[in-house]
Amino acid sequence: MAGVDSGIMFPALRLREWTQEILQRIGVSQDDAVLLTDSMIEANLRGVDTHGITRMLCVYVERIQKGVMSAKTHLAVVRDKASTALIDCHNSIGQVGAAMAMQMAIDKAHRTGVAFTAVAHSNHYGAAAYWAMKALPEGMIGFSSTNAPAAAAPTGGRTPMFGTNPFAIAIPAGKELPFVLDLATTVVARGRIVLHAKQNKPLEPGWAFDDRGLPTLDPHAAMKGLLAPIGGYKGYGIMLAVDCLCGLLTGSNYGMHFPGFLAENMTEPTDVGSVFAAINVESFMELPEFTAAIDRAIREIKASNKAEGVNRIYIPGEIEFDTKSERLAKGIPIPEAVVQDFIELGKQLRVPFPKP
Amino acid sequence: MAGVDSGIMFPALRLREWTQEILQRIGVSQDDAVLLTDSMIEANLRGVDTHGITRMLCVYVERIQKGVMSAKTHLAVVRDKASTALIDCHNSIGQVGAAMAMQMAIDKAHRTGVAFTAVAHSNHYGAAAYWAMKALPEGMIGFSSTNAPAAAAPTGGRTPMFGTNPFAIAIPAGKELPFVLDLATTVVARGRIVLHAKQNKPLEPGWAFDDRGLPTLDPHAAMKGLLAPIGGYKGYGIMLAVDCLCGLLTGSNYGMHFPGFLAENMTEPTDVGSVFAAINVESFMELPEFTAAIDRAIREIKASNKAEGVNRIYIPGEIEFDTKSERLAKGIPIPEAVVQDFIELGKQLRVPFPKP
Repeated sequence: MAGVDSGIMFPALRLREWTQEILQRIGVSQDDAVLLTDSMIEANLRGVDTHGITRMLCVYVERIQKGVMSAKTHLAVVRDKASTALIDCHNSIGQVGAAMAMQMAIDKAHRTGVAFTAVAHSNHYGAAAYWAMKALPEGMIGFSSTNAPAAAAPTGGRTPMFGTNPFAIAIPAGKELPFVLDLATTVVARGRIVLHAKQNKPLEPGWAFDDRGLPTLDPHAAMKGLLAPIGGYKGYGIMLAVDCLCGLLTGSNYGMHFPGFLAENMTEPTDVGSVFAAINVESFMELPEFTAAIDRAIREIKASNKAEGVNRIYIPGEIEFDTKSERLAKGIPIPEAVVQDFIELGKQLRVPFPKP
Repeated sequence: MAGVDSGIMFPALRLREWTQEILQRIGVSQDDAVLLTDSMIEANLRGVDTHGITRMLCVYVERIQKGVMSAKTHLAVVRDKASTALIDCHNSIGQVGAAMAMQMAIDKAHRTGVAFTAVAHSNHYGAAAYWAMKALPEGMIGFSSTNAPAAAAPTGGRTPMFGTNPFAIAIPAGKELPFVLDLATTVVARGRIVLHAKQNKPLEPGWAFDDRGLPTLDPHAAMKGLLAPIGGYKGYGIMLAVDCLCGLLTGSNYGMHFPGFLAENMTEPTDVGSVFAAINVESFMELPEFTAAIDRAIREIKASNKAEGVNRIYIPGEIEFDTKSERLAKGIPIPEAVVQDFIELGKQLRVPFPKP
């Protein structure tokens, strides 16, 4: 349930301009405001409203106003090799550290074929796909992952020890849309459980555990319990691997040590770690040959026999590209309650929220 | 169901010596026989008998004897940059190409911090974990993945387009056992469905689809149908990403184009592609500091509250290390039917299969 499907429609440009102004009013530099805004508006356009202004803007603003996230950017490259870098983000805005790390990965991959960079002591960086996709216009395969506060237990456990620890992979195509996979390592997001609980609707098998660590179909029991990792112990392993790379390898926070990093924690820095990678396709194959092969594979998949009752097979990322086309044309839906929040925020910072 | 839990017990050393002899009788060089044997015996010791001599030896021998896999090694580095390499395996034994590629990744990562290498036109390379774990004694995080013949459909489809496309990640620890994750991207292996079909036992939800592409609990319908990817569309995305990297980026086979690469195809080369990566921990953090942090995280997880009815929480790879200790002491179980096959093979090649 990453997407909002109804609300008041606003043109992306208007939301973008307003958001940039808001961020500058609380001390974010113009460049950083443009970047942070783009990461959110792009998420909204792609239908990933959980990472758009819809859910994140008020959170980021409050964190900066309360001093738990720094408005001023202080990035320091603390380790640097031909194909790796570690950047200390010093509690700067997550997107600002991520932009530098992904750009360094791309620059290094141009020279050495592949690169892997990491940021330490950072914050929520938006959608992982946004960073992986930066590799696409460079003729590269992009990757990014970040850790997050605990929501899932190890297999056999009942204490939350792992975040949804998402990762994204972006692969360039030729004439087809690129492959863009962005996934949380839990079967469903917490929002999905909340929705079922509100409707007293049973969960599907495999979604969640109760507080004893036992599988449950009861959404209310699941609310007090745990999200299930994808593929059982397999997803648990992936979550832990993400935490080892993002949290432990960077010397940042990890697992159950997170104080929570969104609305539920407005007192402590989150100390998130994130990683970024770029693989230069031309180190392996001429780019046009590769993108033609990707196009061919995409067409084969889309033309393959459909399951009963299915009209269309999607490539990862395709729904988000469709949504972006639609929202560029028709606007971004902002739920009424959020519009009210934005009007308030606009008043407080003297940047009136625009009319739809 | 990767492990065999009963059979006649043989000391690992005796199986190792016999297997090396067998392979040399069919034209494999001594070095390559030692390597290929080690990959299989190590899998047996770790309880991953699907990749041990139990299932693979007769298949490899038959492929070599029929000329669909080359006994002679011909590896050519066709692209080489500071942190990447592409090796054309020319239908040599998969393990031989993999060993070179993983070693190149490690050597390059010592110099540049990280490396990513690939092999093209190769064969079944054994267990992915075997290659990822080569990074551990080097103070590196290892990764490997390979593609495989189609067993799963894209989400919404009903034509097999993706293999189980496994990947493995190995992360060094200090005093604790290292983290070793090795997973197929389907919820269960085909063997699990076969077992349930034999026992007329219903499947668990989320394991498989019937031939219309609809979820099924009927093992017989699943036998004619498809394996389910982990996490639904998420696993479909991972499978496709693995195929893009291993198959398409290397110019090897992919998806539905595979002729099948084990017993069901003894006429055509498999043309598998595989990828390997190594991240040098010291590019990010001093190794002792990192391994101490990993130890701490492992202990926290293992000491966390257990789900009702659970006695022990495992770290990925821990069960395999336990099995290895046990099998080094008590021997490797070989099912009776397989012992008969080995006795036959020993007669045919005049290397008598040893007594238990």
